[in-house]
Amino acid sequence: MTESVLDYMTRLGRAAREASRIIGRASTAQKNRALQAAANALDAARAELSAANELDLAAGRANGLEPVMLERLALTPARIDGMIVGLRQVAALPDPVGAIRDMSYRPSGIQVGKMRVPLGVVGIIYESRPNVTIDAASLCLKSGNATILRGGSEAIHSNRAIAACIQRGLAEADLPAAVVQVVETTDRAAVGALITMPEFVDVIVPRGGKGLIERVSRDARVPVIKHLDGICHVYVSAHAELPKAQRIAFNAKTYRYGICGAMETLLVDQAVARDFLPSMAAQFREKGVELRGCERTRAIIEAVAATQEDWDTEYLAPILSIRVVDGLDQAIEHINRHGSHHTDSIVSEHQGETRRFVAEVDSASVMINTPTCFADGFEYGLGAEIGISTDKLHARGPVGLEGLTCEKYIVVGDGQLRGQEPV
Amino acid sequence: MTESVLDYMTRLGRAAREASRIIGRASTAQKNRALQAAANALDAARAELSAANELDLAAGRANGLEPVMLERLALTPARIDGMIVGLRQVAALPDPVGAIRDMSYRPSGIQVGKMRVPLGVVGIIYESRPNVTIDAASLCLKSGNATILRGGSEAIHSNRAIAACIQRGLAEADLPAAVVQVVETTDRAAVGALITMPEFVDVIVPRGGKGLIERVSRDARVPVIKHLDGICHVYVSAHAELPKAQRIAFNAKTYRYGICGAMETLLVDQAVARDFLPSMAAQFREKGVELRGCERTRAIIEAVAATQEDWDTEYLAPILSIRVVDGLDQAIEHINRHGSHHTDSIVSEHQGETRRFVAEVDSASVMINTPTCFADGFEYGLGAEIGISTDKLHARGPVGLEGLTCEKYIVVGDGQLRGQEPV
Repeated sequence: MTESVLDYMTRLGRAAREASRIIGRASTAQKNRALQAAANALDAARAELSAANELDLAAGRANGLEPVMLERLALTPARIDGMIVGLRQVAALPDPVGAIRDMSYRPSGIQVGKMRVPLGVVGIIYESRPNVTIDAASLCLKSGNATILRGGSEAIHSNRAIAACIQRGLAEADLPAAVVQVVETTDRAAVGALITMPEFVDVIVPRGGKGLIERVSRDARVPVIKHLDGICHVYVSAHAELPKAQRIAFNAKTYRYGICGAMETLLVDQAVARDFLPSMAAQFREKGVELRGCERTRAIIEAVAATQEDWDTEYLAPILSIRVVDGLDQAIEHINRHGSHHTDSIVSEHQGETRRFVAEVDSASVMINTPTCFADGFEYGLGAEIGISTDKLHARGPVGLEGLTCEKYIVVGDGQLRGQEPV
Repeated sequence: MTESVLDYMTRLGRAAREASRIIGRASTAQKNRALQAAANALDAARAELSAANELDLAAGRANGLEPVMLERLALTPARIDGMIVGLRQVAALPDPVGAIRDMSYRPSGIQVGKMRVPLGVVGIIYESRPNVTIDAASLCLKSGNATILRGGSEAIHSNRAIAACIQRGLAEADLPAAVVQVVETTDRAAVGALITMPEFVDVIVPRGGKGLIERVSRDARVPVIKHLDGICHVYVSAHAELPKAQRIAFNAKTYRYGICGAMETLLVDQAVARDFLPSMAAQFREKGVELRGCERTRAIIEAVAATQEDWDTEYLAPILSIRVVDGLDQAIEHINRHGSHHTDSIVSEHQGETRRFVAEVDSASVMINTPTCFADGFEYGLGAEIGISTDKLHARGPVGLEGLTCEKYIVVGDGQLRGQEPV
C-alpha cells in the first residue's frame, strides 16, 4: 500500500514543524558546525555528486531538454566548488536570530522592545539549478528555519545527492534530519500540497520562471515571497554628466543581459537627448544591442520603432527600449506606470532632483548614479540572497538572512498591572 | 444605467492608486494639517454626526439588531470626543515616512541603505463601530497611504457623515479627496472586488469577527494583515513570587474579558500549584470567573473538568481554563501547540528560565512578569494601532504607523560600475 502524496507531504510538514522548534533555538555555533560539516561532506562526495548529476543529464538529453536547461542542470567541478564556498560564507555571516532592539521603558513601567526570530518553516520551490538546494538550505538553516525543498524533477538525483551531504552536516551537529527535507516525489501534486499547509509552512519562496511563480502565487494559502519581473530603468536627467551617464547605462544593460537587474528601458531627458544619444547608441550597436526607440529617439538615432508593449517588456536579452521624456516628472511617471517596482536609477548631479527621484519612485531599489545591475544580495552586503522580492510586504528587494526572520515583541515587567497607577 | 459594483470598485481603486502617489510624497506638515482640520470638522459637525447615527440606530432597532451591536454602533458625545482626540494624537506622532537607516559604503564604492515608504493603498474592511473609520483613515493618512474604507452596512450613514468631515480636512490641506474613500454601496460584492485588485490595493486589513477575517483571508488576492484568535497564557513557574503571580494573573484575566490580550488559560507549575491555586481560585471565584481545570488542578481546587476543547478556546468571557504542568518545557510546549501565537507571559524570577521562555515561545508578544492584557499599541508606545497581527510576515503584534509602511533600498554611487574594479 503506497502513501498518498497528500499524506506524504503532511508527514514532511509535521516533521518540519517539529524540527523548526529545535533549529529555532539551536546556538549559532551548532548551526555553523552543521554548515561547515555539510561543506566538508560535499567536498568528500564529488564523485557521488557527479555520478548523480550524470543520471539527470542523461535523462534530460533523452527527454530532449533544451541546451540552456542542460547547462543549468550541470554540476560542474566549479559549481561544486561554488556550493562549498557558499556554505562556508553563510557560516561566516552574523546570526540574525535573537537580536533584541529598542527595549525602552513605557510610562506604565513595562519595558517593550523587539526580538528577531526565525519564521519557522520555509518551503522553497525551484527549477533545474541544483545549486539552489545548497543556497536555500544554508540560508534557512543559518536563520533558524526548517526547510522543505521541492526542486525540479529533472534534477532529482542531483538534489538527493546534495541533500545527503546536508544530512551528514546536520547529523554531525546533532541536529534532526527534518531541518532540511527534500521532497522525494516528482508528483506535481506535491507542490499543491506544500503551498496550502499554513499549519506546517510559514512562507513559500518560488524560484524559477514566471509561470511557476504566478501559479504558486495564485494557489498558495501560505504567504509567498516572490519576484515577478525586472523591468528596470535608467533615467538620464538634464543634469547628468553625460560620459558618466553613458558608462552607467552601458554597464546596466550589458553587465549581464539575463539578470533581473539588467536595464530594459533607457529614459533620456529631451534637453540632453541630442548630445547623449548618438554616442550611447554607437556603443550599444557595437556591442550588438538592438535599440527600439520612441519617435523623439528615432529623430536623433537609428532605432526600431518601439511599440506600447516594449515599455512593459522584460527582454533579458540584448534589446533595449529608449524613450525621450520631458523631464523628471515624466520619467517618474513612466517608471511607476511601466516598471515592475524592482530597481530604477537616476543619473543626475542635481540634488533636488535626486531627492525627489528617491522619494517618489516606488521600487524595491532606487538608485542614484549607479547601474541597476548592482541590485544583488552580495553587492548590498547581505552575504547571500534567497531571491529578490518585488513585493512590498515583509521583504522588499534582495532577501537575505533578515528576510527569513521576523520580529516579535518582548515585554518585561516586574508585576506592573494594566489600568492601575504604576508603582 | 447604473454602474456595476465591479466598475464602481475599479473606479475607486484607480482613484486611490492615483491619490496614493500624492499623499505618499506629501509633507508631514501637510498631512498634519489635514488631520487637525478633520478634527475641527468633527467638532463642528456634532449635530450632523448624531443625526446620521440616529438613522443607523433606528434602522438597527427596526431590523432587530442585538443590544450589544446597537451599543457598538452608537456615536455618543464621548465617542465623538474620542475621535477628535484620536486625530490630534495621530497628528502629534512622528512621521515614519522617509526615514533612512544604515547607509553604508560597500567594497564596490556604492552606498546602500534603506528608506521607509508608504505601502500605497490600504483597504480596510470592518464591522459596526463607526469610530474605526477615523482610526483607520488617520493612521493611513499619516503613514502616507491612500485608504478605501468598507464599513458595515448597519453604520453606513454614520460612516458617510464621518467621511464628510475627513473630506473637509483633506480639502483644507489641498489633498485630493480620493486619499480617503468610503465605499458607498452596501452590496457585499464590493468586498469581493476590493480584496482581489492587487493592481490598485497593496494590503487589506480586516477588522471584525472571526467569520469576516477567515472569509477575507481565504478569498484575498492581496496581502492581508490579520488577527485571528487571542488565546493568551500566563505561566506561573516554580520560581515565581506567588503574590506577584496572583496579581498578574488576576489582572490578565479581569482587566477586560473581551480584549484579545485577555488570559484564557493559566498554566501553573506542579511544584507551586498547591501553594498558589487555592488563594488564586478564591479571588477569581469572588469576581465571578468560572474555572475549568485539568485533573491535577481539580485535585487542589474546585473547578469544572476542562475538556480538550478548552485549551483551544478564546472565551472572551469570565471563564478561565487552568492546567498544572510539569515545568517550563511542558508550559512552552502547551503554549506553542494550543495558543494562537498572540501574547503569552511567564511569571518567574529565574533568569535562565525567562531567557528560554522568551526565545522559545512563538508568539507575537512574549512577556515576563507582566499581564498579557498589556498587548496594545498605546501601551507599547505606537501611539495608536490599526489592529494586532497574529501573522509572522511583515507586521507581528500591535500594528501602528510603521506597520503601514515598508522599506525600500536606496543605493547611491558616483559612477561605480558592476564587475569592474572600484576607482
